[in-house]
Amino acid sequence: MISKREAHLTAIHVTVIGGGLIGASWAALFLAHGHRVCVHDVAPGVASRVHAELRRIQPFMAQLGLLLDPDTPSLSFEANLAEAVRPADIVQECGPERLAFKQALWAQVEAHCRPDALLLSSSSGITASMQSRKMRTPQRMLVGHPFNPPHLIPLVEVVPGRRTSEPAVVRARDFYAALGKQVVVLRKEIPGFVANRIQAAVIRESVSLVRQGVVSAEDLDIAVQSSLGLRWATGGPFLSAHLGGGAGGIKGFLQQFAGGLQLLWLHMRLRPVLLTRKTQEALVAGVQSGYGDRSIDQLASLRDHQQIALLQALQQTPPTRTPKP
Amino acid sequence: MISKREAHLTAIHVTVIGGGLIGASWAALFLAHGHRVCVHDVAPGVASRVHAELRRIQPFMAQLGLLLDPDTPSLSFEANLAEAVRPADIVQECGPERLAFKQALWAQVEAHCRPDALLLSSSSGITASMQSRKMRTPQRMLVGHPFNPPHLIPLVEVVPGRRTSEPAVVRARDFYAALGKQVVVLRKEIPGFVANRIQAAVIRESVSLVRQGVVSAEDLDIAVQSSLGLRWATGGPFLSAHLGGGAGGIKGFLQQFAGGLQLLWLHMRLRPVLLTRKTQEALVAGVQSGYGDRSIDQLASLRDHQQIALLQALQQTPPTRTPKP
Repeated sequence: MISKREAHLTAIHVTVIGGGLIGASWAALFLAHGHRVCVHDVAPGVASRVHAELRRIQPFMAQLGLLLDPDTPSLSFEANLAEAVRPADIVQECGPERLAFKQALWAQVEAHCRPDALLLSSSSGITASMQSRKMRTPQRMLVGHPFNPPHLIPLVEVVPGRRTSEPAVVRARDFYAALGKQVVVLRKEIPGFVANRIQAAVIRESVSLVRQGVVSAEDLDIAVQSSLGLRWATGGPFLSAHLGGGAGGIKGFLQQFAGGLQLLWLHMRLRPVLLTRKTQEALVAGVQSGYGDRSIDQLASLRDHQQIALLQALQQTPPTRTPKP
Repeated sequence: MISKREAHLTAIHVTVIGGGLIGASWAALFLAHGHRVCVHDVAPGVASRVHAELRRIQPFMAQLGLLLDPDTPSLSFEANLAEAVRPADIVQECGPERLAFKQALWAQVEAHCRPDALLLSSSSGITASMQSRKMRTPQRMLVGHPFNPPHLIPLVEVVPGRRTSEPAVVRARDFYAALGKQVVVLRKEIPGFVANRIQAAVIRESVSLVRQGVVSAEDLDIAVQSSLGLRWATGGPFLSAHLGGGAGGIKGFLQQFAGGLQLLWLHMRLRPVLLTRKTQEALVAGVQSGYGDRSIDQLASLRDHQQIALLQALQQTPPTRTPKP
C-alpha cells in the first residue's frame, strides 16, 4: 500500500532510460516524490509522449494524495546517453527486453555515470547476473521490477544478481520504500521472479478450465474476482491458509487440506496445458465474447478507477501485517 | 459484489442443515434478505452458538447495508430432520464433507420435504452426481458452493450434477443472485470446482518458491497482496491479460507472452511439489515467523475489516463488467 509516513527524502537525480509506458509511469512517481528526473530515449517525439502520459496519470495520483505537475522543471530529456547518466544518483532502466541490448547498455552507462550511482533494471525476466556480465562494476547493478503500472501498483521486486553487493540491495530497497512501494527482496534469481510466476500458475489453470469447457473466460474472471482476488487483496496465500485452518492456523489448514491439495496438484500435473494455435484462438474468442463490447481504453479506465478506490480503502484500514522496521 | 438493486423477494422458507460456521453465515445472509430460516443440527447447544455467531456477524453486514436482527423470530431450530425440511422451499446443506453422510441425508430429505423443494449442497468437493446417487428425485439437487464466509464473499459456484434439471439450475442461480451474490454456473463437474483449483495452483507455486528459498512466506504474501490480489479484485486473469496486451488486447498479450508462459509452465511441471512432513514443518515455521506475533482472531478481524472496506469501495465504483441481464 502507498504508505502515508513522512518520506524525509533528499531530492535526488534519477535518470530513466526508456520513455515508454513503464518509463513514464516511473518518472511520474519519482517526480511526485520530489526527485529530479532525466528521461533518456533516442526515439523522436519522446518528450511530448511522456508529457501526455503524465497528464493522463496526474488525476489518478492526486486521488492517492500524490501531487504531480506534468510541466515541472524537474523533468528533463536527454537523447545522449553519456550526458543523461552523468548526473544520476540512480538509473532506472526501462528499455527493451533483449539481453544483448541491456548488456551493451550497462557497459556504456558505467563508463559515464558517477562511481556511486545505483543501477536498477525494470526487467521482468532478464536477471541482473545476466545483464551485468560485461560490467566492471556489477556490484551496484540489480533488478527493481515493478508490477505494471508502477505509479499505481505497490509491489517492487528487488532481485540482486550473484555479484550485486549487499549495500546496493539495501539502497535499492530504501529508495523504493521511500516512494511508498511494497518492496520484496528475492534471495535467488528465478525466471519470472515471484509475482509473474504466481500469475503464470493462475493463467495456466484458467486456460485449462476454459479449454476443458468447465467455464467461459468471463465466468472464470467473475469467479476469481469475487472470491480469491478480494481475499488476496487483503492478505496473500499463506495468511489466507493460516486463517483458513480454524483455531489451528496453518497447522490446522495443512492437516485438513494437504491431502486434497496434493491430489489436485497431481491432477493438474497430469494434464499439460499448451498454447497451441487452436487454444489461442479459443481464448481470443472467449475474451472477445466477454469483453468485446467495450474498448481496451474504456476497460482500462474502469479498472484504474477501481484500483484507486481499493488503494484508498486500504489506506484507510489498519493493515493485517505489522509494518517492518 | 453485493448488488444494491431491489431484491423484490417473496419471503421464502430456507432450511439450513448444519449449524457450524458455514451454516450460521448462510443463515445470516438469508435472514438479512427477509427469508424464514430453520436450522437443523443434532449437536447440543447449536442455537446459542448460531445466535452468538449472528451477533458477531451483524455489524459487518450492517456496513454493507444489510440489516440482520440476531434475535429475529424468523429464525428457528429443529433437531428432527423430517420436521426441519417439511416446510422448506429451499434446503441449503452445510454438513460434514463425507460422501456416505450426504447420500444418506438426501435420501431422507427427499422423503420428507415438499416435492417442489430445491435441494442445494454447500460442498466444496463432493459433486452433485455423487451426492444424489441414492435419490429418487436427483433432478432438483445440485451444489451451491460459497466461498468462505458466505455472508461476506460474493462468489457462489453453482454446479449441477449429471441428473440435475435445467429449471433447478435456473432457480438456484436466481435464488443466490437475489441475495446479491456473484453466481457462476459450471458446465462440468471437476474436483475443486473453479475457485479452489485456482487457489490450489497458487498455493502450489507459493510452496515451491518458499521451499526453493526464493522468498519467505511473509514476503510471498506481500508480493501477491500488493500486486496480483489488488489486480484480480478488479478483474480476473483473462481481463487482466486483455488489458496487458496493449492496443491488441488478448491477441497482443498472447503474441507477446505465450512463449514465456509456456516456458514457465514447463519449468513448473518439471518440479513436482510435495507436502512432505519436512515441507509442512518449514511452512508452519515460515508462517509462524511472519504472523506468530498475533492471534488468529486478531488477524481474522483485521482481514474482515479490510474486506468490508474493499467491498464498500467496489460498491461505490462502476464495475468493469456490464451486469448480466
